[in-house]
Amino acid sequence: MSEERPITAVLGAGGYIGQHFVRLLADHPWFEEPLLIGGERSEGQTLEQLWHLDEAPPEALAGQRVQAAGAATLARRGVRVVFSALPSGLAGGLERELLRRGVSVFSNAADHRLDPSGVLLVPEVNGDRLRALGRPRAGRGLLVTNPNCSAAGLVVPVAPLLSLLRPRSIHVSTYQALSGAGYPGVPSLAITDNVVPFIREEEEKLARESAVLLGGGPGRRGPLRVPILTHCARVGTRDGHLEAVTLEATARPTRAAIESAWRAFDPLRGRGLPTAPSPPVVRRGEPDRPQPRKDRWAGSPGRARGMAVSVGRVRWEPPYLRFFLLSHNAVRGGAGGSVLNAELAVANGQIDGGR
Amino acid sequence: MSEERPITAVLGAGGYIGQHFVRLLADHPWFEEPLLIGGERSEGQTLEQLWHLDEAPPEALAGQRVQAAGAATLARRGVRVVFSALPSGLAGGLERELLRRGVSVFSNAADHRLDPSGVLLVPEVNGDRLRALGRPRAGRGLLVTNPNCSAAGLVVPVAPLLSLLRPRSIHVSTYQALSGAGYPGVPSLAITDNVVPFIREEEEKLARESAVLLGGGPGRRGPLRVPILTHCARVGTRDGHLEAVTLEATARPTRAAIESAWRAFDPLRGRGLPTAPSPPVVRRGEPDRPQPRKDRWAGSPGRARGMAVSVGRVRWEPPYLRFFLLSHNAVRGGAGGSVLNAELAVANGQIDGGR
Amino acid sequence: MSEERPITAVLGAGGYIGQHFVRLLADHPWFEEPLLIGGERSEGQTLEQLWHLDEAPPEALAGQRVQAAGAATLARRGVRVVFSALPSGLAGGLERELLRRGVSVFSNAADHRLDPSGVLLVPEVNGDRLRALGRPRAGRGLLVTNPNCSAAGLVVPVAPLLSLLRPRSIHVSTYQALSGAGYPGVPSLAITDNVVPFIREEEEKLARESAVLLGGGPGRRGPLRVPILTHCARVGTRDGHLEAVTLEATARPTRAAIESAWRAFDPLRGRGLPTAPSPPVVRRGEPDRPQPRKDRWAGSPGRARGMAVSVGRVRWEPPYLRFFLLSHNAVRGGAGGSVLNAELAVANGQIDGGR
Amino acid sequence: MSEERPITAVLGAGGYIGQHFVRLLADHPWFEEPLLIGGERSEGQTLEQLWHLDEAPPEALAGQRVQAAGAATLARRGVRVVFSALPSGLAGGLERELLRRGVSVFSNAADHRLDPSGVLLVPEVNGDRLRALGRPRAGRGLLVTNPNCSAAGLVVPVAPLLSLLRPRSIHVSTYQALSGAGYPGVPSLAITDNVVPFIREEEEKLARESAVLLGGGPGRRGPLRVPILTHCARVGTRDGHLEAVTLEATARPTRAAIESAWRAFDPLRGRGLPTAPSPPVVRRGEPDRPQPRKDRWAGSPGRARGMAVSVGRVRWEPPYLRFFLLSHNAVRGGAGGSVLNAELAVANGQIDGGR
Repeated sequence: MSEERPITAVLGAGGYIGQHFVRLLADHPWFEEPLLIGGERSEGQTLEQLWHLDEAPPEALAGQRVQAAGAATLARRGVRVVFSALPSGLAGGLERELLRRGVSVFSNAADHRLDPSGVLLVPEVNGDRLRALGRPRAGRGLLVTNPNCSAAGLVVPVAPLLSLLRPRSIHVSTYQALSGAGYPGVPSLAITDNVVPFIREEEEKLARESAVLLGGGPGRRGPLRVPILTHCARVGTRDGHLEAVTLEATARPTRAAIESAWRAFDPLRGRGLPTAPSPPVVRRGEPDRPQPRKDRWAGSPGRARGMAVSVGRVRWEPPYLRFFLLSHNAVRGGAGGSVLNAELAVANGQIDGGR
Repeated sequence: MSEERPITAVLGAGGYIGQHFVRLLADHPWFEEPLLIGGERSEGQTLEQLWHLDEAPPEALAGQRVQAAGAATLARRGVRVVFSALPSGLAGGLERELLRRGVSVFSNAADHRLDPSGVLLVPEVNGDRLRALGRPRAGRGLLVTNPNCSAAGLVVPVAPLLSLLRPRSIHVSTYQALSGAGYPGVPSLAITDNVVPFIREEEEKLARESAVLLGGGPGRRGPLRVPILTHCARVGTRDGHLEAVTLEATARPTRAAIESAWRAFDPLRGRGLPTAPSPPVVRRGEPDRPQPRKDRWAGSPGRARGMAVSVGRVRWEPPYLRFFLLSHNAVRGGAGGSVLNAELAVANGQIDGGR
Repeated sequence: MSEERPITAVLGAGGYIGQHFVRLLADHPWFEEPLLIGGERSEGQTLEQLWHLDEAPPEALAGQRVQAAGAATLARRGVRVVFSALPSGLAGGLERELLRRGVSVFSNAADHRLDPSGVLLVPEVNGDRLRALGRPRAGRGLLVTNPNCSAAGLVVPVAPLLSLLRPRSIHVSTYQALSGAGYPGVPSLAITDNVVPFIREEEEKLARESAVLLGGGPGRRGPLRVPILTHCARVGTRDGHLEAVTLEATARPTRAAIESAWRAFDPLRGRGLPTAPSPPVVRRGEPDRPQPRKDRWAGSPGRARGMAVSVGRVRWEPPYLRFFLLSHNAVRGGAGGSVLNAELAVANGQIDGGR
Repeated sequence: MSEERPITAVLGAGGYIGQHFVRLLADHPWFEEPLLIGGERSEGQTLEQLWHLDEAPPEALAGQRVQAAGAATLARRGVRVVFSALPSGLAGGLERELLRRGVSVFSNAADHRLDPSGVLLVPEVNGDRLRALGRPRAGRGLLVTNPNCSAAGLVVPVAPLLSLLRPRSIHVSTYQALSGAGYPGVPSLAITDNVVPFIREEEEKLARESAVLLGGGPGRRGPLRVPILTHCARVGTRDGHLEAVTLEATARPTRAAIESAWRAFDPLRGRGLPTAPSPPVVRRGEPDRPQPRKDRWAGSPGRARGMAVSVGRVRWEPPYLRFFLLSHNAVRGGAGGSVLNAELAVANGQIDGGR
């Protein structure tokens, strides 16, 4: 494995997910600090001027100006790994060009999530799928996407239950945070004293991408063939998607077996991935948790902050298992997800990284 | 039917639901303006001093002082009908004493909801059950309760679908407003930038009371024998419970048949009840409705403001029917529900009212 | 005075203030229902599709489509009075063209507020200034503007105190509502759990326009020559600007004299203007009022809803008078202000109206 | 100076400020981990069960149960230093008893703030006053209080300007966070979509305590004799009091001189106090800062998180200086203030501490 840290870039550094990428990569042990690439609205401004997150921007990058740059320029400047936070729809073309120039793409955009030449990846859930891609042949990049932010939260605690419960159906209702819509995103007039029970295409993505991910475990072929019934709503929280989940089981494990399945679930243990939470499922025992404000940063301290999925209010009345989960939509469900994906690719030797 | 309007009282006039009772009864055509009865904390203060609602208190009652009074006093003062907004747990004893003294009780409290001597009532859903109680014998009062606020919203649009869909299971996740917890209720520190996925006993009440109500239609015996899987969460909206509903159907009606069942549903039409919304189900066609802020007062204008249940985002992918509903928890799900119940009792001739 | 109601139009009918204009004009006794004029983003959509307010759009106009139209078209179609809710900067050119074609303009935009050919008007404060403009000569329109939303609230309760207190300085800190920024306006991510102590040019406008208005009373010449020290901040309320006001007085009236000055202040009484609140200053005696949620609609019921300015927490410790005021920024401080201005112009016989 | 770390206790460990004390003392280098003392409602529960803060409770104390204990018990158990977060009114008696038993008291309660036997202290502002108390005689404790949360924020950036501007008056309007009222504190129904322009006795405390503190600098005698005109309002933010400040100056320094006074202000530099922010005034240059959500934790990283006061939007138009400030009400304006006070007492040798 190469000892040299690859040159990286963040596409969409002016946006909310883009800035989470920048935060996570600013002092990453395996990757170089990213170039900041953005569109018309952010070009020429410093990171600091554009900054939307509550914590201060990384000192080393705060004064760096966001640049416009196409695939050719990025490749010429030696960029080997790109983290893409471009809006879905805009991302596809540029990402494809980068791949053709040998740049690997780890993307939060939806455009290539179901592209057969890449992989939709949550390492703890379908990590084997990445290895199956192999190392890209010379002159080509690796294409890896993280799922929709609500799907990322759902699949982590559901994956270890699949063989135990053999569900007949999965019901999910979401309470999604404002940052899921990026910046400027949801107008304050629309959400003050309100809930908006509609997020464009979200219910479809949540169902479809969860099925792909859950179908991708060891020994599985193709998407999970279980109906996933979704309701998606926006609430007035800043970060952290809460989800109410009901699984109708066809098997009858004990409650202890369910708890044990969650406790035992830590497929990345020992891989040394800096951003991997251990364990990935944090089981809250309080009567009123998980909550967005208290659990969004689960996985702390260190690089895995915001990468764990919290689970609580577990009610097992066979054949129905009900629980709530909470995951940070912009970290586990966004930038952090793709950074973890890239780390797995380095650990697998599929891309170079300064490990 | 008596032409004389009965003397009424509101128990718990210092609280949020109590004040909705006062608002609805202040100029009610069938009932006298209520006496304002309250506990230690509110005794001696004027309605205006205690007022929690946004609209101004009814002018005629604003200066009236809240009094402490037991059952004997109320009966002696000629009170014939009591609307109870006492906290569950405290309500039961006083309500029972009032019944024994010939005072009819229309209660929002949970204590007697499943009491076999009374009836848990939503007029559009199980109105026949009230008539079955008959007119109370001399010296006894009539006992009628409205359900839990989230159950009240659920049963109205589900009732007309039961025979059409013959559901195998009903899944409900709630987005409940702050006023559901009364005043002072939820601390602002607990809910700012947050969702709390727990409301004590709410999931149990929602399932149990909905089953009783939905089982009570014409020709039915006992509670509906269909699993109702509930998740209850508190969000930071002021009024209006939003609910995400999925019915798994065993029948396959057309979508048009479903829409038509809702359109045709208006069992109180022609009864002349002042607080009855017509129709009780308001079908919203926009892509992002119903919403708490925009739809909480559905049923306007006039006395039925806040009594209709709004339904939208209907997705029928057999065997699953999904939709969102919104109802005003303090009106349809609280004071308005009991006022409508009392109106039905008057119309049935079971209690006297100045019709 | 003409009995015929003039044809009107609302410019910017797709926006928040524009829709308040539409709401106020939909069934106005003196003006015809407005044509709905908008820009590219709203052209071709129905009022209902664009609607941002909580109450339902006026039934008669809900299905009307917003049109693009220039000054020539509007004049040709017989429009005599235009209410302008265009963004400042865009408004000026079109408004000027309309004036040249004989169309009178009542504008919420800032462009012409200090234009010497028109008048910046709050009828209760400097109503005489309007009359001084006379009736526009043939082929010209009348130009009248309402002030910035925070100035509109300030000047109403300050005006009747000027001669009494002869202030040496006026200090104002604002707590401004989200709707002051229009729609989409303030991003929810920017304001959730936050206050933003900056609104572009607002402090300057508040000081400058208040000085002009307060200097315009009977017998006054030019702007008030008293320093007005302003701080403007955005808070997370939907409607209703709260302002903390301190006047340093050079005179020493009794407290009773101050209260009496407010009570006596009702310069429009008897003029019969449909939108004029009577009295314009509502004095709240509670210890914790005025509040945005409870007092924004002061002036109810009827057409003057939201037109009164509420005043409370009055502390007079000579030489300092402190109080809080609250006014509805989109009504008194926006659309309602200009509608009242137009009513005064009709009552003065300066424009035709179907009185 | 003693090397032994004194045994400490937190009074009111079940409350919001109490838990900030616990957080700050859990691993403090100079003090022992505190005993957790509370009232009836919290007695017997673990810290974890009572925890209100977003970050997790200190691991070492999470399972400790809150105990009820009087002064005698605390003294007998060897407690030498008490941090008091008791409610004002309740605190006074117990604090006095502790002092009589030789226990030093650092209190957030208002009861003894103006007590001549103690000192109301903000180390950067009137640190010399503490030294003047000397070391308490045998068998007596030292009495030190931190000011009201809004006063704590005001005095830090005003102190270094006093001699430069020689103000004629000081005007302050506050935008105070919910946590200033503790837990449960402000009901969510009262503040959702609202601002409440009243906090009991807050305006009086802010004016009075600021005058005492600002009058306490070197060479000063008695309270500052400049009118401080205050308006206090509660807004819906979680933590961080924002204040709009106007000073009317009688001197005319340059703007550069003002900026330089703030930059140079760091009177605790070199004292080695663990909780002292350096510098105490953080000057924000952005057009829209300080903001509660972004600046509440100024002073990071480390122990001084939340101890700096942020200043921005500085407008100097002689004779008026206007700016906004932001300070964390529960840290700089509460627990952190008293911990810093205790550190100064240790550094002065007035109490023992394990330095």
